Amino acid sequence: MFHLLDIIGTMAFAMSGALTAMHKKLDPFGVFIIAFVTAVGGGTLRDVLIGRTPVGWMQDLQYVYVIILGYGLAILFRKKFDKLRTSLFLFDTIGLGVFTLIGLERGIMTGLHPVICIALGTMTACFGGVTRDILCNEIPTIFRREIYATICIFGGIIFFVLRKLNLDQDVLYLVTSLIIIAIRLLAVKYKWYLKAFDHK
Amino acid sequence: MFHLLDIIGTMAFAMSGALTAMHKKLDPFGVFIIAFVTAVGGGTLRDVLIGRTPVGWMQDLQYVYVIILGYGLAILFRKKFDKLRTSLFLFDTIGLGVFTLIGLERGIMTGLHPVICIALGTMTACFGGVTRDILCNEIPTIFRREIYATICIFGGIIFFVLRKLNLDQDVLYLVTSLIIIAIRLLAVKYKWYLKAFDHK
Amino acid sequence: MFHLLDIIGTMAFAMSGALTAMHKKLDPFGVFIIAFVTAVGGGTLRDVLIGRTPVGWMQDLQYVYVIILGYGLAILFRKKFDKLRTSLFLFDTIGLGVFTLIGLERGIMTGLHPVICIALGTMTACFGGVTRDILCNEIPTIFRREIYATICIFGGIIFFVLRKLNLDQDVLYLVTSLIIIAIRLLAVKYKWYLKAFDHK
Repeated sequence: MFHLLDIIGTMAFAMSGALTAMHKKLDPFGVFIIAFVTAVGGGTLRDVLIGRTPVGWMQDLQYVYVIILGYGLAILFRKKFDKLRTSLFLFDTIGLGVFTLIGLERGIMTGLHPVICIALGTMTACFGGVTRDILCNEIPTIFRREIYATICIFGGIIFFVLRKLNLDQDVLYLVTSLIIIAIRLLAVKYKWYLKAFDHK
Repeated sequence: MFHLLDIIGTMAFAMSGALTAMHKKLDPFGVFIIAFVTAVGGGTLRDVLIGRTPVGWMQDLQYVYVIILGYGLAILFRKKFDKLRTSLFLFDTIGLGVFTLIGLERGIMTGLHPVICIALGTMTACFGGVTRDILCNEIPTIFRREIYATICIFGGIIFFVLRKLNLDQDVLYLVTSLIIIAIRLLAVKYKWYLKAFDHK
Repeated sequence: MFHLLDIIGTMAFAMSGALTAMHKKLDPFGVFIIAFVTAVGGGTLRDVLIGRTPVGWMQDLQYVYVIILGYGLAILFRKKFDKLRTSLFLFDTIGLGVFTLIGLERGIMTGLHPVICIALGTMTACFGGVTRDILCNEIPTIFRREIYATICIFGGIIFFVLRKLNLDQDVLYLVTSLIIIAIRLLAVKYKWYLKAFDHK
């Protein structure tokens, strides 16, 4: 289950990266680089910070294959995806839910405190997208009005609460991912956001 | 002493990050992220480069608490701090002096050459602020006219000179930090800067 | 041979960094930082990702000396180099060829799959220059129209093909470096580039 979610999140982020890069008219190689960085950026930062090296994607070629597949699908269906317009948003949201979970799990496996695990989950989910947006010269989604990283933190808290209930691990993973995905869909639909501090 | 300085530097940088971010009207979560990154950015880069992982703040929750405290204080007193205007500059300078020292010390503990230790001190002191400025879309302080990183290098050289004198460690730490802080205050007051190369 | 190439690549990238930074009228310290980051950026990222820490330049002061030498030469001959105009391009190209090879070699030494080794070679060759361009506020060479990283990938494939022939290691290194350098020279002369996807 864990592994399956990882594959799904990687492909979703690779496609979101490829679509953004094609929209910016990068050349095929540039599109691949952005797809790759979006897919592995968060996990790479996490692995480097906890000292799990060589980082994940270097030890398991499956990631490379999945990214190539996502890249190919994004190219093949680029006109279809573009019409839907929400597809980019959907892939990004799926990746967000799944990668938060993977970051949480890695933190627990490394024996870190829940607060640090939640930071790792948030980082895993958000950093690839931040890098994608910076390289494509977009304002990072994470800094736009909508809540984004906040959802990962909230999802992390729910994860540790549910974990106390001794749920089956697969159920725990699936439920947490789905909750994060659902909250983001609701957050965007109903325009939830945090208010800036009044200042001066 | 070492630990106390680390706490002071972390809080000073957290506050400087929070104040900059509030000035940029980021939402409360964004302000927290900037405060966090400013406080731990330099040390995280240093720890990753020397292979001390999981990086410092993941192994000791005290950093997280101190950052939350600095964040809270910056929010509570944001109108006061804003009037003073120099407060941001002061916090930044305290962090600069203290973090240079911590970087130097870590380098020595890792058994690295003094030249590399000075590079680590400079990196620890400067990288958090560079990240803060980039994320807040400011020109990094380090690249503005005034000298900044140069002071850290100078402080590092003084540290290794004083170290030959067999001073008490606490005294050595305190004196070096204060010298760095003093030089920066003087540098800004008297507008010391390096001249660019004549070119063409 | 391996070591000699590393020294040559480091100096070439240090000079390319220093020339770019002087062109941007940074102060002497800023020029040094850019020279340093350009020279060690790619190797540092590679070492961190594969877990070879403290990273290379911290363990061997020779890199620091070579960078200082390259920095000094770039300053001394800055007016000469500026007239030639192609010198920056030439140094960048030499660094590209040599550093690709070093990245490939490190990947093999770490026991990684050829695909990952090629990624490491590309990263080693390109990341220093990307950082140089971002810090100097230039559009990264890698994202401009001309092919660049693609050449590193191509060079990596040639390397693994030639390796099957049981060539002497020195010959293998030299030939691969020269092929990469030659392809880039041809690519720029004849304006080879990848076409962006037609979109919409």
